Amino acid sequence: MQVEHLIAEMALAGRRSSRDVAVASTGQKNQAIRLAAERLLGQQQAILDANNIDMANAEAKGIAQPLQDRLKLTEDGVQRMCEAARAVASLPDPVGAISDVASQPSGIRVGKMRIPLGVVGMIYESRPNVTLEAATLAMKSGNACILRGGSEAIESNQAIASCITWALEEAGLPPKVVQLVPTTDRAAVGEMLRSSECIDLIIPRGGKSLIERISNESTIPVLKHLDGVCHVYVDDSADAEMAVNIVVNSKAEKFAVCNAAETVLIAATRAGELIPMLVEKFEELGVELRGCQKSREIEPSMNEALESDWTEEYLAPVLALRVVEGVSEAIDHIGQYGSGHTDAIVTNDHANAETFLNGVDSASVMVNTSTQFADGFEYGLGAEIGISTNKLHARGPVGLEGLTTQKYVVWSNGEIRHR
Amino acid sequence: MQVEHLIAEMALAGRRSSRDVAVASTGQKNQAIRLAAERLLGQQQAILDANNIDMANAEAKGIAQPLQDRLKLTEDGVQRMCEAARAVASLPDPVGAISDVASQPSGIRVGKMRIPLGVVGMIYESRPNVTLEAATLAMKSGNACILRGGSEAIESNQAIASCITWALEEAGLPPKVVQLVPTTDRAAVGEMLRSSECIDLIIPRGGKSLIERISNESTIPVLKHLDGVCHVYVDDSADAEMAVNIVVNSKAEKFAVCNAAETVLIAATRAGELIPMLVEKFEELGVELRGCQKSREIEPSMNEALESDWTEEYLAPVLALRVVEGVSEAIDHIGQYGSGHTDAIVTNDHANAETFLNGVDSASVMVNTSTQFADGFEYGLGAEIGISTNKLHARGPVGLEGLTTQKYVVWSNGEIRHR
Repeated sequence: MQVEHLIAEMALAGRRSSRDVAVASTGQKNQAIRLAAERLLGQQQAILDANNIDMANAEAKGIAQPLQDRLKLTEDGVQRMCEAARAVASLPDPVGAISDVASQPSGIRVGKMRIPLGVVGMIYESRPNVTLEAATLAMKSGNACILRGGSEAIESNQAIASCITWALEEAGLPPKVVQLVPTTDRAAVGEMLRSSECIDLIIPRGGKSLIERISNESTIPVLKHLDGVCHVYVDDSADAEMAVNIVVNSKAEKFAVCNAAETVLIAATRAGELIPMLVEKFEELGVELRGCQKSREIEPSMNEALESDWTEEYLAPVLALRVVEGVSEAIDHIGQYGSGHTDAIVTNDHANAETFLNGVDSASVMVNTSTQFADGFEYGLGAEIGISTNKLHARGPVGLEGLTTQKYVVWSNGEIRHR
Repeated sequence: MQVEHLIAEMALAGRRSSRDVAVASTGQKNQAIRLAAERLLGQQQAILDANNIDMANAEAKGIAQPLQDRLKLTEDGVQRMCEAARAVASLPDPVGAISDVASQPSGIRVGKMRIPLGVVGMIYESRPNVTLEAATLAMKSGNACILRGGSEAIESNQAIASCITWALEEAGLPPKVVQLVPTTDRAAVGEMLRSSECIDLIIPRGGKSLIERISNESTIPVLKHLDGVCHVYVDDSADAEMAVNIVVNSKAEKFAVCNAAETVLIAATRAGELIPMLVEKFEELGVELRGCQKSREIEPSMNEALESDWTEEYLAPVLALRVVEGVSEAIDHIGQYGSGHTDAIVTNDHANAETFLNGVDSASVMVNTSTQFADGFEYGLGAEIGISTNKLHARGPVGLEGLTTQKYVVWSNGEIRHR
């Protein structure tokens, strides 16, 4: 079958199945998820065998080692996957919640009901564990999904998907609630991005270039996650020890994460005291500091920060450092160079904390804590689909609610409208 | 100046001004809106003179009469415009509300703050009253806006916009919070739709073809309002009088509105009783009924409904009528042919009401009331930017909140993350 027909048929089947899973009971959805996890454990050997074929093909093709590491499944890995799926089954169901009900002057009562989006298209790299995770999040939130994993993982993904299909049928749900694109033809991605009639949201997971390509090509809304150029601003009134702890944790708790700080801004009044403390700490940790001119007057040994450093997402043991006049200049710097991901102030001044919270237009704005807390689990969302740098629909860490929308519900006892 | 440079400059100025209006106080924003209304009344003659130039040009060009009617401003019209602006100034400010604050196990507190979108692009037809309305809604919600009105209204729009600019400056806000595109060059619209760096949302107002063209071309999210193919389903258990009242009001309270019903679905058990009642009522009102085969067995005088009738938005005194088995078939019909705008059930059966509310995936789903209630003012939103048929961001009648988004705010007293 031609790939365009294949995707068109899958999209239509997704749309049809989405109607059933949208009104499925919480118990039925949870059962499907738990059965899928159980089946995966039962079929573990078949899944590892399929993964071995993928691994052999990847090696024969000379795929880079880090990609092979992501592709590799182990017994432990399968167990962790299944535990994560069961955890999602235990979360509250976001669907069906009714809020904001109020009576109106005409006599009608108006409220909002939370409902699934419909069909979600997930496009990801060759990490077979994402297949179960994406399917689980979609099922729990009452959506159908179409999964397009990286081509190197095709055998593993098909083995996993067949367990999910079995579980859906066992639970009395349409098997096409979860569909895996069964071809490695890259044209399939383009076809998905044009299926705006039948797919409601595209969620790409992977590197920046994948996400940019998908965003530019898609006629369907995309839950984007681009750069994380995060800042910590240390205010005039900050507690010195707290400031150093927060800067160090924001940068160095993990380097290769989007919520790691890439630039620290320091109020001029505190530069002389704090910069030497930071230089010492980061030297211990093997982190390179790149400073502005003013900071290099204090610590001439620091490398010089170039204009390009203010916008760079290092994801590495490098931190840019700039001395600013105060909270206003910090907000301006973040507005000009930041990526709208996560930014923190360390301060003991109430007015400056408020100014920073209101003035910084980022998905997460923090007072006296580490940027590395920007995470769906830490925010109490129970699951994380991704961290959105979109402004519309979902912003910041996205949980199950990000796979839902709301409709208005109106109750009356026969009122009619008179204009 | 070339139009691409003009729009690029306006978009950048909008982005810059948006930072100031985003943190402006409620009082300052309200003052700017009230001063704009006052100035418009004071400059009424200049505005009517500008409108006369537009009218003369429109007549010379032989513009169709209905378009000329929309273009025409009167003293009364200017007064109404200004009253509507003052009403928006009196609404609660959506910006700055903090909700869902909860402590997390790590010790951080996480909540959500409502904030403006940033820069909104409004593209509308030649109705000069929209200029003040759009500017007012943007200002109140803390956004900058770029307005592109129909070219026939350029003189009127510039006269109105200059009053708004004056008011912004008087209120101490940047004058470029509200910018009117000063050229009638159609290329300006295309340039706006490509300014995704500086414009956050496009709101088109006008006919379906305008909205479709903009949606297809835009790289910026579009608040879409497409078809309103609304349904009333009369259930087995419906009260006959209530059913007839609701069907008649849904169709005939106004014909040319998107929330008017275009199809009535009737449970087979009630067809024999209700169809003659509806035929009689609609004959009085001059509404043509187009029936399915089963309904024409009851009333052979009715015209026949073709397949195309089920998807047509008549916006006229025509109503399609179909006999269905019950609530499931009604939901299927609406899923297949409806536009996801507004659909109602008339019933006295609790289970069927629930099934309909859960099963119909439309922006508004109603029990025992008229589809013509689907309206921002009737829903208590205080203002209406439009009725969205999008699934994401805003769905159904959109008030000021539709011009805002949320960010996460995180408070702590020095907590850092330990993975």
